Amino acid sequence: MGITEHPGAVFPSATAIPSPEFPLRVPVPPHRPFAEALGANLKETFFPDDPLRQLRQARGPRRRLLAVLAYLFPVLNWAPSYDLSLFRSDLVAGITIASLAIPQGISYAKLANLPAVMGLYSSFVPPLVYAMMGSSKDLAVGTVAVASLLTASMLGKEVSPAQYPTLYMHLAFTATFFAGVLQASLGLLRLGFIVDFLSHATIVGFMAGAATVVCLQQLKGMLGLPHFTTATDLVSVMESVFSQTHQWKWESVVLGCCFLFFLLLTRYLIGHLTKGINPLSVSNLVFTGPYMMVALKTGFITGIIALAEGIAVGRSFAMFKNYHIDGNNEMIAFGTMNIVGSLTSCYLTTGPFSRSAVNYNAGCKTAMSNVVMAIAVMITLLFLTPLFHYTPLVVLSAIIIAAMVGLINYEAAIHLWQVDKIDFCVCMGAYLGVVLGSVEIGLVLAVVISLLRVLLFVARPRTTALGNLPNSMTYRRMDQYSMAQSVAGVLILRVDAPIYFANASYLRERISRWIDEEEEKLQSNGETNLEYVILDLGAVGSIDTSGIGLLEELKKSLERRCLQMVLANPGSEVMKKLDKSKVLEAIGQQWIFLTVAEAVAACNFMLHACKPAASNGANSIADVTATTDHQVIMHDDHGNIV
Amino acid sequence: MGITEHPGAVFPSATAIPSPEFPLRVPVPPHRPFAEALGANLKETFFPDDPLRQLRQARGPRRRLLAVLAYLFPVLNWAPSYDLSLFRSDLVAGITIASLAIPQGISYAKLANLPAVMGLYSSFVPPLVYAMMGSSKDLAVGTVAVASLLTASMLGKEVSPAQYPTLYMHLAFTATFFAGVLQASLGLLRLGFIVDFLSHATIVGFMAGAATVVCLQQLKGMLGLPHFTTATDLVSVMESVFSQTHQWKWESVVLGCCFLFFLLLTRYLIGHLTKGINPLSVSNLVFTGPYMMVALKTGFITGIIALAEGIAVGRSFAMFKNYHIDGNNEMIAFGTMNIVGSLTSCYLTTGPFSRSAVNYNAGCKTAMSNVVMAIAVMITLLFLTPLFHYTPLVVLSAIIIAAMVGLINYEAAIHLWQVDKIDFCVCMGAYLGVVLGSVEIGLVLAVVISLLRVLLFVARPRTTALGNLPNSMTYRRMDQYSMAQSVAGVLILRVDAPIYFANASYLRERISRWIDEEEEKLQSNGETNLEYVILDLGAVGSIDTSGIGLLEELKKSLERRCLQMVLANPGSEVMKKLDKSKVLEAIGQQWIFLTVAEAVAACNFMLHACKPAASNGANSIADVTATTDHQVIMHDDHGNIV
Repeated sequence: MGITEHPGAVFPSATAIPSPEFPLRVPVPPHRPFAEALGANLKETFFPDDPLRQLRQARGPRRRLLAVLAYLFPVLNWAPSYDLSLFRSDLVAGITIASLAIPQGISYAKLANLPAVMGLYSSFVPPLVYAMMGSSKDLAVGTVAVASLLTASMLGKEVSPAQYPTLYMHLAFTATFFAGVLQASLGLLRLGFIVDFLSHATIVGFMAGAATVVCLQQLKGMLGLPHFTTATDLVSVMESVFSQTHQWKWESVVLGCCFLFFLLLTRYLIGHLTKGINPLSVSNLVFTGPYMMVALKTGFITGIIALAEGIAVGRSFAMFKNYHIDGNNEMIAFGTMNIVGSLTSCYLTTGPFSRSAVNYNAGCKTAMSNVVMAIAVMITLLFLTPLFHYTPLVVLSAIIIAAMVGLINYEAAIHLWQVDKIDFCVCMGAYLGVVLGSVEIGLVLAVVISLLRVLLFVARPRTTALGNLPNSMTYRRMDQYSMAQSVAGVLILRVDAPIYFANASYLRERISRWIDEEEEKLQSNGETNLEYVILDLGAVGSIDTSGIGLLEELKKSLERRCLQMVLANPGSEVMKKLDKSKVLEAIGQQWIFLTVAEAVAACNFMLHACKPAASNGANSIADVTATTDHQVIMHDDHGNIV
Repeated sequence: MGITEHPGAVFPSATAIPSPEFPLRVPVPPHRPFAEALGANLKETFFPDDPLRQLRQARGPRRRLLAVLAYLFPVLNWAPSYDLSLFRSDLVAGITIASLAIPQGISYAKLANLPAVMGLYSSFVPPLVYAMMGSSKDLAVGTVAVASLLTASMLGKEVSPAQYPTLYMHLAFTATFFAGVLQASLGLLRLGFIVDFLSHATIVGFMAGAATVVCLQQLKGMLGLPHFTTATDLVSVMESVFSQTHQWKWESVVLGCCFLFFLLLTRYLIGHLTKGINPLSVSNLVFTGPYMMVALKTGFITGIIALAEGIAVGRSFAMFKNYHIDGNNEMIAFGTMNIVGSLTSCYLTTGPFSRSAVNYNAGCKTAMSNVVMAIAVMITLLFLTPLFHYTPLVVLSAIIIAAMVGLINYEAAIHLWQVDKIDFCVCMGAYLGVVLGSVEIGLVLAVVISLLRVLLFVARPRTTALGNLPNSMTYRRMDQYSMAQSVAGVLILRVDAPIYFANASYLRERISRWIDEEEEKLQSNGETNLEYVILDLGAVGSIDTSGIGLLEELKKSLERRCLQMVLANPGSEVMKKLDKSKVLEAIGQQWIFLTVAEAVAACNFMLHACKPAASNGANSIADVTATTDHQVIMHDDHGNIV
């Protein structure tokens, strides 16, 4: 297409290229003292949500103290303006979640092989602590299925809850204590982002794996096997099961199935529930002896999993209702709640999704609904435990079975497969790791695959050739936009990742392959020779010394091939480092442009209007800026011909 | 500024916004079968340099076999056209590097506590293997100071070379064998990029650390201490030294200093050098017993360090002379050379920078210079060893001292500090890790810091607000371009990294903080309310399901705040995943634009021309495409007023 066919394309330059009065170049950012830059970076890394804004705005020591207290205890923010209409909503929501908390607490405690009453204890003290310190308005505190399962499987491997119930219980308190310490430390050290490395895909796979493992463990009772492996992996369990086929008690299988059936039809009594609120358990924590390490490991793993769930739930509801919660502050709240819990006969609590969703739907307004729930549970503990003698066990079974089934979220796995294959691998890694290996192996495998994906993104950045979209000044990836047209004599490459040590060598090879292929193609078509290589650095968010070294080498190597390297749209970090390392001088500021369009225009101007001058670029480029109209017409004309 | 002041700005639209005949939208890439996409990705990841291109082009089984052989033995590529003029150059270069190789080989063997003649053996067989299999034309093969140092310090910790010289030597062969196996495996498995994770900064710090450690070890001899720690770290050495102050032999110190002085003045005899070429050492490899593990560890660490040096040197010269070397193929060549070397009484060899630079400067043309060097060394071994009885030891000392001093490259460290503080931390991590801990700790520390930097880049991506550059359709970072102006009612945010699980939560918090701050600012200035949030996804190279989830949540949360989310310039991967996860439908294809300028134009059109219609976006946006001129004038007018 020629110019005449598109008269609109004749005057595009005034907006696309700065007019002579505004000779815009890519600026080198001004020097910042090291300490200032470091401070700003640390702040952006560890305090991205600027949590101390209110503290800074407070004047006078008394107000500042109040601001600190309000930061640590968000209850101080909402309590003063709390009124009856809010309480009415919270009362309804609190009673609703209490009616869920009591049977759920008992079931999950059974799942964790702990006394049923501990489930109630855990719905009394921790919600009170959270109501003071938590910043979510919708989170309902309580025990969760997956942490209960993990406690049972990890502690149970070392200490049998049937043989040594007291030691087992003390270890559960100790694990809760360690979990709380870990959670609070992560929050205090502003390391909350560690939880982000447990991606949604990891959690989906991990929970399904944990549920599968617990189901496998039920085979022992179902088949009535006298010896059973303490390992939890599929291979060990299957070995145990099939090496004892002669021991299989068919009566037991039949009985088990009948029992299951019976369970679904009738009801069983739950047994004795101690009256009275939480006894202290400070003296029960185990900090010595051979079992301390298993409590530590259990605490860390369950703590981090519980934290991931609680934080994710809190964030989702905050996003939904459009208020802000501070992730690190939440972690301190979770940690304190579990430390206090471990001293008052509770085991690990967090913010379960199901209970929080009920809380939200019941119309809760503030964390007061947790207080209402705690008081309801307290009343139950003080006066109503006799009633629970008659809690139908089948209800508990139903709750546990529902929890199990809910944990195997195969739809989420299918969604992962459809949208992102690597996330599916992460999910399967977690699942298979837990089922075939152990809980730790599953977690580590999933996190390692996730991290490898991130590293691979950086180690193998995508480089793409850009082309001109017809009738525009826009340059886009030619593999994405089929109508994008290459520009004669110019190769425009875009790098889609930071240039780091991990990819500098790769980029060196990949860019020279691009140039080789382009030259081959041009030669075989008998077209104009390649003269310019434009690197679009718009997506290069960061660069290190290896990256700077690459640009320097590339410049030299292109020079030896009689090609001119041109940079387009480098960010301020790239410009700063190019300047500091003196590579900017080597490349020449005149070969660095604000946009790809300007770079192409300059190249085209050199190719056509002043060919002989191309070797001493500096002066002629200066002319280009003054003759913008001409140059862009050249380009558009050209871009369309090629 | 009004429109009238810049008449040029009135007709910019035809190029910036597609005309009605070309209603360009961001396309959803066509579906690709999973296997095809996987294959393409694997190819791009493991074969970025397309090494099998020649193989594909070859027709017929015989040609194909030749192509395979030529791939494995690059000598077949250059040997047929090798002529006398090339040989003349290589002869000169080969003799030059041989004259360097002989004293250097002897010195480094002494540094590794191995018999001097092994240095000569190592300059005979490995260069011949490399000449067949290596693809670099400039690399000169030989032993290197740092690998010799490491061998001495790592093997010497377990087996004293003075007490058990034979066992020590056999372990050195074994370590070389393992190093070769590791190197060849990395190449065969196309895992060469692992070497890239040893950045330049790591190597600088590591080598300086290794040199410091060796200097510290000399204190034993200098002070004449009878008991000395086998640990290499600074603390242990200093403890050893200062706990035995009563043992310090002042005579020894004086003697040592005199000796050093004497060394520099006079010459010593080197001792006996065995005549004859390399004896076989196949039967000397140690694959059992307590020492196998230390040989394995030494082999892996020295192997990877040597590989990093050799590959970097090869790549630099290839870049310099503008030819291509295949990194993975080079690794196979290095690996084979060391495996063969370990069977013929050689210890670890690689491509040292100093010797290769001499080779290059002497005008080498092909790997034939290595053959010439090997033959010269062979002649020396066969006939000239008696001459070396008189090699002045002071020359060797000078070579070692020079190597030591050369290894502490403080200028490079200063450069790192100036250009990139994190690279400086990596360098110091490697140095301090080696000096205060051990060789392994230093390496691991440096690699971990390097990886953390990469992860931090992804975990804490930069988000910046974009503004319009005056008189242009270009939008750039407002913190980089001070003249960039914000657009009323529109917040334009740019995310500078892939959106992954590791940063989805962070971005959620950071973006809502951007919006909060913008709304606060607008309110305090009494300006127009915020109505549109444009996300520039141009630099988002990749996205996972967590990232897609973030966009979905963000859309909902913005809707609740009565803000419209608009996406600009998403890449094909982002579009594909948005489409597959149905989030594209939720956002609405009409809210996705090719450029920020088009997105702003559409927002401005909605803000001004058809305010009441803003809520049912789809239809009115369709109108925008047809009335391009109008819309852009609105925008430019506006962009300048704000």
